[in-house]
Amino acid sequence: MKAELLIKNIGMLATATGSAAKAGNEQGEITILKDAWVTVNDGNIAAVGTGEVAVEADKVIDAKGQLVTAGLVDAHTHLVFGGWRADELALKLHGVPYLDILAQGGGILSTVRSTRAASEDELCEKTAAVLDEMLSLGTTTCEAKSGYGLNMETELKQLNVVKRLNESQPVELVSTFMAAHAVPQEYKENREEYIRQIIEEMIPYVAEHKLAKYCDIFCETGVFTPEESRKILLAARQYGLEPKIHADEIDPIGGSQLAGEISAVSAEHLIVCPPEGIESMAKGGTIACLLPATSFYLGATFAPAKDMIAAGVPVAVASDFNPGSTPNLNLQLAMNIACFKYRLTPEQVLTAATLNAAAAIGCADKVGTIEVGKQADLLIWNAPSLNYIFYRYGNNLVDTVIKKGEVVKSK
Amino acid sequence: MKAELLIKNIGMLATATGSAAKAGNEQGEITILKDAWVTVNDGNIAAVGTGEVAVEADKVIDAKGQLVTAGLVDAHTHLVFGGWRADELALKLHGVPYLDILAQGGGILSTVRSTRAASEDELCEKTAAVLDEMLSLGTTTCEAKSGYGLNMETELKQLNVVKRLNESQPVELVSTFMAAHAVPQEYKENREEYIRQIIEEMIPYVAEHKLAKYCDIFCETGVFTPEESRKILLAARQYGLEPKIHADEIDPIGGSQLAGEISAVSAEHLIVCPPEGIESMAKGGTIACLLPATSFYLGATFAPAKDMIAAGVPVAVASDFNPGSTPNLNLQLAMNIACFKYRLTPEQVLTAATLNAAAAIGCADKVGTIEVGKQADLLIWNAPSLNYIFYRYGNNLVDTVIKKGEVVKSK
Repeated sequence: MKAELLIKNIGMLATATGSAAKAGNEQGEITILKDAWVTVNDGNIAAVGTGEVAVEADKVIDAKGQLVTAGLVDAHTHLVFGGWRADELALKLHGVPYLDILAQGGGILSTVRSTRAASEDELCEKTAAVLDEMLSLGTTTCEAKSGYGLNMETELKQLNVVKRLNESQPVELVSTFMAAHAVPQEYKENREEYIRQIIEEMIPYVAEHKLAKYCDIFCETGVFTPEESRKILLAARQYGLEPKIHADEIDPIGGSQLAGEISAVSAEHLIVCPPEGIESMAKGGTIACLLPATSFYLGATFAPAKDMIAAGVPVAVASDFNPGSTPNLNLQLAMNIACFKYRLTPEQVLTAATLNAAAAIGCADKVGTIEVGKQADLLIWNAPSLNYIFYRYGNNLVDTVIKKGEVVKSK
Repeated sequence: MKAELLIKNIGMLATATGSAAKAGNEQGEITILKDAWVTVNDGNIAAVGTGEVAVEADKVIDAKGQLVTAGLVDAHTHLVFGGWRADELALKLHGVPYLDILAQGGGILSTVRSTRAASEDELCEKTAAVLDEMLSLGTTTCEAKSGYGLNMETELKQLNVVKRLNESQPVELVSTFMAAHAVPQEYKENREEYIRQIIEEMIPYVAEHKLAKYCDIFCETGVFTPEESRKILLAARQYGLEPKIHADEIDPIGGSQLAGEISAVSAEHLIVCPPEGIESMAKGGTIACLLPATSFYLGATFAPAKDMIAAGVPVAVASDFNPGSTPNLNLQLAMNIACFKYRLTPEQVLTAATLNAAAAIGCADKVGTIEVGKQADLLIWNAPSLNYIFYRYGNNLVDTVIKKGEVVKSK
């Protein structure tokens, strides 16, 4: 047997089991191999085995008895935006009411202004630095939503940045069109016109130019109603953009029920998801994309993750990286919080941040598990076991990041 | 003016104000300089200024407009121990009752066994790796407690490891003797004898050989009573080991009151600290050494930090790094949690993890602030402002670590 790359001396290889593309893996069954090895050819996993290995390889990496997993998949980020809002947390901690912060020009609309003002090149450069950090923390595939443009020009600029970065750096990106992230100030009194533009102008253009795979919407009190959400998402589906929904983040106004009814690929946040929503998602085959770091940063409650798993809803865990409600890009930390606060097991959380996350962004056929034929997106950890990476929380335990068979980060 | 080192182009220099060695800084007043520079001679800060700088320096570091603070001081760790307990979190998440984990040989006594079994060299090597990680995360001074030996031989082994590491790597260590961390199994039925050994044998030896600066005790239901704590700590003081107390972590049995009564340098944890305890600490000049990551990891409630500050008790924030109740060594994360959960301001938390932490381990005369004459323990951050390091939580924002004027870490 010959191979381009051999990773040998893997103390523990841990991977979610099964590669069902859409459904994910509800219960978090994983496969553990001890004393394992992996070979790679043409960027894909060629063989996986245990014990003695007789392979001639061009390159050999010694995992030194440590843990190897699939690369992490971050299924929910608002990756591309202008500016930061570094003072808002401090203002809140100093007791300034949120409405005053908004009145001073803060909040999402401040990011919209900054994103509109930034050039495509500026956004590319800034986002490339973010992706480089993510990569060093183990994220090898990442979803990216637009939604800080809120007009045709800037939404396209965000999507173009993702397209360009997909060709120029190692983290694989999946684009989601989310002009329905907020109603822009200029249409506050004429929201129907903004919805018309989304449906009649933006979605057709985005679809025609293949700038996004998904369409997402913020279904929430004061943002978009369930009726508006249904209308926009079904229109998007007609153009081939499959639906995702920000649902039940603050108020349970029916977002998760809608997600299941229209078989959305995923529903996001779900902090206050009611039993009817869980039931609907289970029926509709919708993945629950949970964002524990957001609850942590905002001091909110936590989504009923265990109830979802019990009901057969596959759970993904993502970072929600964004400049307002959680500026954390470290998926490892979100995974830790999923253990501490959702009380999910290491097996469930590994599955949630690899296979189920890949399924939530339509990539489970090529990433999210360690299986022959899939992309060789692999992490070698500074950790002897899966349990250890949840236990030794707080600092980056990823030692080596391999994307499509190439070492792209190494400590 | 000539200098060995010039750090120029500091966008923001942020330092706690005042250097009162014992009292710390109760309210978290800080000094901010913009467009600043710092010079270093003989490992100490020689000058601090703003605007144009006319200094001939042997070495110049360009801070590129970023934030500079004092090095972080971690005032509470259980740094030296054998083994890890990586499976205990997973067992708990899988629903195994804690008593069963103990019955299976888990818990603190498992660390005692591992620490007794490890050689001094093994402990040195393992702890050096931990310190190297801490250093890259910005910790330049660190307290280290014994307390996993629970017998003369192993307590001394732990203290010796700290002594050796203090001479062989950059993080400056302050030793605390804590044989009163638990009653060892072999004295369960004869605790008086263990207390006698601590007082009559261990403390005199540790003091004579200058192996520790402080003596700490776990004052808690089922561990040591307030009466036993008082007896041991006052004995330690007679030998020059100033008292610290683990108080009010689980039950408010009087630990914080005792801390104030005997003017302990600090009381630790204080999760359930009652108003009488706060009052006593304020009167006694005791620093509250709070450990937010421990509450986070254990799912416990959080210490009433704001009430303490309001009462004039200086608050320090530390990692509590240990193999059982919080295996996190990243003080930045503990600082983030102090904002999110205690609702302290960035100014208060910076003070808590620098000046007040230094005061809690008797080093405020030489570290914890950026002042002429103090050690040049400095961090250059990948951050333009103080607010930013609390906002952009989750990944290591420290770019360059300078200890006594030498660059010891650089990204």
